[in-house]
Amino acid sequence: MLDAKLVWIPDGSVTSPQGFLAGVARAGIKDYADTPRPDLGLLVSHRACAAAGLFTRNRVCGAPVLVSRRHIADRSARAIVANSGCANVATGARGEDDAIRMTSWVGDKLGIPASEVLVASTGVIGRPLPMDAIERALPGIQPSRDGGHELARAIMTTDTVPKTRALRVEHEGRSYTVGGVAKGSGMIHPDMATCFCFLTTDAPVDAEWLHATLREVGDVSLNMLDVDMDTSTSDCMFVLANGAAGGETIDANHSAAWPLHQALERVAIELTRDLARDGEGARTLIEVHVSGAATREDARRAARTVVASPLVKTMVTGRDPNPGRVLMAVGRSGAEVELARLRMWIGDKPAFERGEPARTAYDTLAAAMHHDEVRLSLDLGLGDASATAWGCDLTEEYIRINADYTT
Amino acid sequence: MLDAKLVWIPDGSVTSPQGFLAGVARAGIKDYADTPRPDLGLLVSHRACAAAGLFTRNRVCGAPVLVSRRHIADRSARAIVANSGCANVATGARGEDDAIRMTSWVGDKLGIPASEVLVASTGVIGRPLPMDAIERALPGIQPSRDGGHELARAIMTTDTVPKTRALRVEHEGRSYTVGGVAKGSGMIHPDMATCFCFLTTDAPVDAEWLHATLREVGDVSLNMLDVDMDTSTSDCMFVLANGAAGGETIDANHSAAWPLHQALERVAIELTRDLARDGEGARTLIEVHVSGAATREDARRAARTVVASPLVKTMVTGRDPNPGRVLMAVGRSGAEVELARLRMWIGDKPAFERGEPARTAYDTLAAAMHHDEVRLSLDLGLGDASATAWGCDLTEEYIRINADYTT
Repeated sequence: MLDAKLVWIPDGSVTSPQGFLAGVARAGIKDYADTPRPDLGLLVSHRACAAAGLFTRNRVCGAPVLVSRRHIADRSARAIVANSGCANVATGARGEDDAIRMTSWVGDKLGIPASEVLVASTGVIGRPLPMDAIERALPGIQPSRDGGHELARAIMTTDTVPKTRALRVEHEGRSYTVGGVAKGSGMIHPDMATCFCFLTTDAPVDAEWLHATLREVGDVSLNMLDVDMDTSTSDCMFVLANGAAGGETIDANHSAAWPLHQALERVAIELTRDLARDGEGARTLIEVHVSGAATREDARRAARTVVASPLVKTMVTGRDPNPGRVLMAVGRSGAEVELARLRMWIGDKPAFERGEPARTAYDTLAAAMHHDEVRLSLDLGLGDASATAWGCDLTEEYIRINADYTT
Repeated sequence: MLDAKLVWIPDGSVTSPQGFLAGVARAGIKDYADTPRPDLGLLVSHRACAAAGLFTRNRVCGAPVLVSRRHIADRSARAIVANSGCANVATGARGEDDAIRMTSWVGDKLGIPASEVLVASTGVIGRPLPMDAIERALPGIQPSRDGGHELARAIMTTDTVPKTRALRVEHEGRSYTVGGVAKGSGMIHPDMATCFCFLTTDAPVDAEWLHATLREVGDVSLNMLDVDMDTSTSDCMFVLANGAAGGETIDANHSAAWPLHQALERVAIELTRDLARDGEGARTLIEVHVSGAATREDARRAARTVVASPLVKTMVTGRDPNPGRVLMAVGRSGAEVELARLRMWIGDKPAFERGEPARTAYDTLAAAMHHDEVRLSLDLGLGDASATAWGCDLTEEYIRINADYTT
């Protein structure tokens, strides 16, 4: 279908696309006594970028969200400064001043206007940023072409592994690269771009096309992810496109638009799966595929509700197949459902067929769940719409992590 | 305010009101190997009752819900047969036949039409009821005036304690009694009358008034309860009023209407609190009170979203005060929120004041959480509407219970 080749880049990162640099520092924003690691990172393009952003819809949103939203309103940005350890949320007027100062300092350091700098902070809510520490650490950051992996580590909170991906698009003799980095492990629920996800590309693109494309990509990737139903106050998803690969500007009518859209979508979906796999306390990636829905919204709702259900999650935790829990979740999703038409599979094993449990043996269904990834598929039998959502199991480790976080 | 006295009846139950009898049997519907207990119960009035019901809104609802909804449509019922161990949900056409047969058998036993019998089943989804066992056990049930406590035990699933309450209303020389029983520990989220709750009263009431009153009572009690965000396919709340206390029929214009409404509401709220306290794995009852909301719907949303948030729940589990998590939950509730006007208390200690964390010491806030009940209060500062919601903490025990349920 695509007149283009998409090739994953081994060990690719957000700095795989040409002209992007990243660097980090250990500012000591949070005291990671046991595992000292960087907590301040900078991503920068050596030239101007078309840029787009998606932000949390939580009404309590962080000062960095307010500031970044203003800075990206002109569809242009050249740098992202991000920190872990402190979210700069619910910190009063001071919080917004601090976010603005971070963009000013970075602008000064890079010789660009502060309005070209986006800011993203993650970590504890309700505590002010240690601005002294950040000001001291910033000059030490030396962005480089291979800084993408370090950046991924600098923005981690309870994440156990960094998440980076990059994909090369080969199309009509040209090669574009799309890179991405994401973080997030808890307070993750499908309502807007959950967590942080920064995408880069060296393709030359029309800013309006980029904006529309990011919205569509977000809808099928991060917006279909759930770890624990809680929506962060700091979620944001950015894409910067610097055109360093050369060639004509890509807009909706350009033949490379669809390949590039696909590349952005695949990077975003793989990062989404990486986030689900590394959800707080998670041992299992859950993928829920809903087909045969009456409408796309129904398919999305059903998939998201099933993947977010605590009873479905714990069923996966215990590898204890229980189609009834999945039915319960679909039933409360708001999607149109008729049990007599519904079919369900656990892995590739039939679990429910048109009104009644399938005659698959319990042990067969249980065996279909003994994998690092468990796939639940539902055919609602009512239409043509489909959707996929990702999440993870709910384990005792999630409780341990979250019952003792700030202290 | 009330020209009436409401007095709790020690050890009261659903059979405390005059003319109500209950009995149970151990049918062996589920094999409770470790704790043999009754699993089939019957509640019956010795005379005709006005009756009202609220049912789950889950689109996958059980056969018993379909049958009871039809039987109560005429605002009249005399008996409730209820079982634990099997929910009779997603069991195809056979499921509805089985639910109808249960009401027929009970009708025959009691000498009343099947249409006067309500049926409620709770337990595993997707398995047919063992009708032979139920048919064998029914004749052995001998309803008696002191059967209310046994009934409470018969309908338990993962509940660890039975829940029964009764309240006497003294008004203008007359005495009415309101009794109640409830069950439910998991798959509980505020959307309709979650779980089972059966209320009785010997007051003589107008059936339409009873219907309207139950709806209001359900809205401030069971509909404000959350254990784990999952909505049961079997939830129902019934009230039977048999008039055995004598006197004029109570309708909306009667002076006893408000005292009786209050009594029904208090019994329902206490049962709701009992359910929250005994949520799966729970060690702590959480009460969230929201005031100052712009609208009642905003107050309800905010209270329910906070009490249902996994990160708020685990904050209580760990006795680790973190106002940011509460703000995050309020922010995603959909309620109108302005941080600069919002105030929050943990117990009676200020935790957040108009845009910024309060200057209360961490240890003081933590101490305010070291109780069996933790109260979170929010004043949104935007209007006059208020609401209260109940829930429980989320513990490792919840995971253990639900990762190994059917097996």
